[in-house]
Amino acid sequence: MKYGYGEKKDKLQNRLRRIEGQVRGISRMIEEGKYCIDILTQISAVEAAMDKVALELLREHTRHCLMNDAVGPADREEKVSEVVDAVGRLLAK
Amino acid sequence: MKYGYGEKKDKLQNRLRRIEGQVRGISRMIEEGKYCIDILTQISAVEAAMDKVALELLREHTRHCLMNDAVGPADREEKVSEVVDAVGRLLAK
Amino acid sequence: MKYGYGEKKDKLQNRLRRIEGQVRGISRMIEEGKYCIDILTQISAVEAAMDKVALELLREHTRHCLMNDAVGPADREEKVSEVVDAVGRLLAK
Amino acid sequence: MKYGYGEKKDKLQNRLRRIEGQVRGISRMIEEGKYCIDILTQISAVEAAMDKVALELLREHTRHCLMNDAVGPADREEKVSEVVDAVGRLLAK
Repeated sequence: MKYGYGEKKDKLQNRLRRIEGQVRGISRMIEEGKYCIDILTQISAVEAAMDKVALELLREHTRHCLMNDAVGPADREEKVSEVVDAVGRLLAK
Repeated sequence: MKYGYGEKKDKLQNRLRRIEGQVRGISRMIEEGKYCIDILTQISAVEAAMDKVALELLREHTRHCLMNDAVGPADREEKVSEVVDAVGRLLAK
Repeated sequence: MKYGYGEKKDKLQNRLRRIEGQVRGISRMIEEGKYCIDILTQISAVEAAMDKVALELLREHTRHCLMNDAVGPADREEKVSEVVDAVGRLLAK
Repeated sequence: MKYGYGEKKDKLQNRLRRIEGQVRGISRMIEEGKYCIDILTQISAVEAAMDKVALELLREHTRHCLMNDAVGPADREEKVSEVVDAVGRLLAK
């Protein structure tokens, strides 16, 4: 495992498995003709759960890849732009 | 199918199946130790795709459940609150 | 006042005045060299307050402009698209 | 100026002044009874502009306060949590 989230691998994958189940559950709600509003509520829950995965990855990335003495000055600007752009994509998704 | 998204059932379920595959793909990226930033990009893509499903449901709900002559004045306030609250949850997820 | 939010005009304008003050407060925090994280927190507060204004407008629009017997079938599709697109812009801002 | 955004102070304050004007413009739209959907579009624009200010601050914070050799190991965890929590608040606003 090259990157900083190695220790959190199991935790992240468990969360993603749960999210996969939630998405499948939404498909089942549509199959069964459940009320739109209840389906929208589940969609909000999936997005909130995805955001938690994103924040966990951002935490590990910041901890291990940004605040890392091995990142020389020459690489810093690129690393900073990368992470700011990634947050920008999450905000504007 | 009781609710208004009946005609869009297949389209919505296809989208959700694709999203499920994307979530599984993110788990695989973690398994393979892919770069955090690339995983964050995929998470943004999943959330954007979920938003499209939500907007499609909102469209069908508005079309068939709100703008529906069968909704009497007594039920209107409740219907309005339901939909506004659902949008609020999506905005604040 | 042509549109549905007429009764809420004062409430909405009070909120916007408060938001204007908050934005000015953020500029002052920058002037005074306050800590970035505290400024980011204030930015989240402004966006949450803007979302509340948006939801209030959406409520009045749904109540008076969508669930309105005067909207004939020919206009419905356009009205539905308008509101769904507006929510889409709020979600993707 | 203690913090990292010092060099960007003018740029940030110009943006905030523009946002203040946009908020005032929204209040004027309400005064003049403009169409709800057009007001919602302006609200999205304000939120997008606020996000840009937030991303600029996040960039300067990451550049100067996180990727800073002066931050010792003991302070890192706290700095990481601070920034991740701030991004979380922006995502969930």
